[in-house]
Amino acid sequence: MEVETYPTGRRLARLEGRPITVADAGEFGLIRRITARATPGTFTLLGPGDDAAVLRAPDGRVVVTTDLLVDGRHFRRDWSSAYDVGRKAAAQNLADIAAMGAVPTGLVVGLACPPDLALDWADGLADGLKDECALVAVAVVGGDVSRSPVLTIAVTALGDLQGREPVTRTGARPGDQVAIAGRLGWSAAGLAVLARGFRSPAALVNAHRRPEPPYSAGPRAAELGATAMIDVSDGLIADLGHVAQGSAVRIELDSAAFDVPGRLREIGGALGLDPMDWVLAGGEDHALAAAFPGDLALPTPWRVIGRVTEGTGVVVDGEPFGGPGGFDHFA
Amino acid sequence: MEVETYPTGRRLARLEGRPITVADAGEFGLIRRITARATPGTFTLLGPGDDAAVLRAPDGRVVVTTDLLVDGRHFRRDWSSAYDVGRKAAAQNLADIAAMGAVPTGLVVGLACPPDLALDWADGLADGLKDECALVAVAVVGGDVSRSPVLTIAVTALGDLQGREPVTRTGARPGDQVAIAGRLGWSAAGLAVLARGFRSPAALVNAHRRPEPPYSAGPRAAELGATAMIDVSDGLIADLGHVAQGSAVRIELDSAAFDVPGRLREIGGALGLDPMDWVLAGGEDHALAAAFPGDLALPTPWRVIGRVTEGTGVVVDGEPFGGPGGFDHFA
Repeated sequence: MEVETYPTGRRLARLEGRPITVADAGEFGLIRRITARATPGTFTLLGPGDDAAVLRAPDGRVVVTTDLLVDGRHFRRDWSSAYDVGRKAAAQNLADIAAMGAVPTGLVVGLACPPDLALDWADGLADGLKDECALVAVAVVGGDVSRSPVLTIAVTALGDLQGREPVTRTGARPGDQVAIAGRLGWSAAGLAVLARGFRSPAALVNAHRRPEPPYSAGPRAAELGATAMIDVSDGLIADLGHVAQGSAVRIELDSAAFDVPGRLREIGGALGLDPMDWVLAGGEDHALAAAFPGDLALPTPWRVIGRVTEGTGVVVDGEPFGGPGGFDHFA
Repeated sequence: MEVETYPTGRRLARLEGRPITVADAGEFGLIRRITARATPGTFTLLGPGDDAAVLRAPDGRVVVTTDLLVDGRHFRRDWSSAYDVGRKAAAQNLADIAAMGAVPTGLVVGLACPPDLALDWADGLADGLKDECALVAVAVVGGDVSRSPVLTIAVTALGDLQGREPVTRTGARPGDQVAIAGRLGWSAAGLAVLARGFRSPAALVNAHRRPEPPYSAGPRAAELGATAMIDVSDGLIADLGHVAQGSAVRIELDSAAFDVPGRLREIGGALGLDPMDWVLAGGEDHALAAAFPGDLALPTPWRVIGRVTEGTGVVVDGEPFGGPGGFDHFA
């Protein structure tokens, strides 16, 4: 019921010929821009504009996860567009929901930013959030904004288990097979390209800017009987390490089971880097890694890459992985 | 199943005699400290440590709200302890849940902070979050941490409607009475004291540091048949303005109906300020304001302060309020 679609600040900016900023839109104008772009999700009962939103939770339980993205740390505005950052911010949270075997039901977003941030940037972020949410038929149902010297995005995603038990990190058993769905190493290869000042190959650079998590593979894995599952955000070895530790097992990977894409081999050769390091240690592609009973024939997109045995840790071809480790956000 | 309770960094800091920082604890150590302090809430099915948490949503719906707190904007570390900030961060989100007529079920928290932040500060924050959550028998069930030059806290709270309809801002009708539960003006008075360099009276300063939302009054109002409700975070006039606009009604307040506490009168006199301005325009006490059918006898803690009529806007004793307006986080 807000009627002031063009706040005074925007009119002023137009008269003065300067770029329109988020401060011109004002607090409530900005919240509206971030939340109002989305078409209502199929789980939305009460959307933005009140003290809180209301989502359907048909299962009688709700899955919830949260992530922060900080300018200069999780993204660079000269490498990624606002739209890219929106896609990525939504994707990494939605992937966490999928990794529990759940389907997403909605998102809330907090945006802290300098008052002179271009309103176009905020609009691009909102568009990216909206489009990533649309892939799984959900919406941004609430938000908060604040002034801050550092552009920071806080996303919380909710999900529904559809009657299934959550697939945690603790259920892998010796004899299970280990499989992945989604891309590995693409984001890391794209980052290596960007870090060297290049902007192509586009496929790799875009993979870094916008991960493509295999959302539907998560609930499907739960249906198939996955014993453990995790979202690969910090690197396969590091994240499978959490599964090995949580399940008190050893995970043995076969390097020959990985089909390293030609694009990664080519750019690895050009940069003098081993693409297998990207595949095993690169984060941010948000693939899903899971353990399944050993006798199960796994449908696509799941590819078997190893097995669960007695012991501890993660080994590749029987040896501890000698490449770079996972990402510590305080390192 | 984490075994490294004393990471290398902490050992090093002890050897060197310098303060232990969040960077010493590391990313996963810090997440554990923030989430692991809480006793499991009554709604917690799967707590911290996986890709996502799982909460009970017995109603088949879930209420969700999010808020950001930025250092220097929503709190000052020289005015509020880490514990105070934790209490406040939880309280303002839990109050939003109550303002929908719901009971809180859990919290997730994102913390972005400089790597040299004292680990004691993060622990104090975690204790404050835990203790505020304990007031409503919930817990911090998940979190994320990141390095950032600006200390920023992102909290998302979830809630359950217990079979009732959500009480929104849009249902107030002419003939309704308007009532409040909780304190008004205390936080603003405390802020005025702090801004002048004083640290007492303690009751007011502490009211600014730690709001005391009347959590149970929210669900109770819904049971009583409240037609509209809002959390008073930006100031009573400003927030009732949202109800008036959302419900397309006028809200008429009687200044004589407000019982301005003696402490506010005293400090107002000492500072040469009208305490009624704090009551009507001061934010952050997180009182609840609601409209109820006009013939209803309201139980404590609800106090009637006015009525709903045909028209628009909020008036005090028949006149537009001439004091300071609400708080725009980009102004």
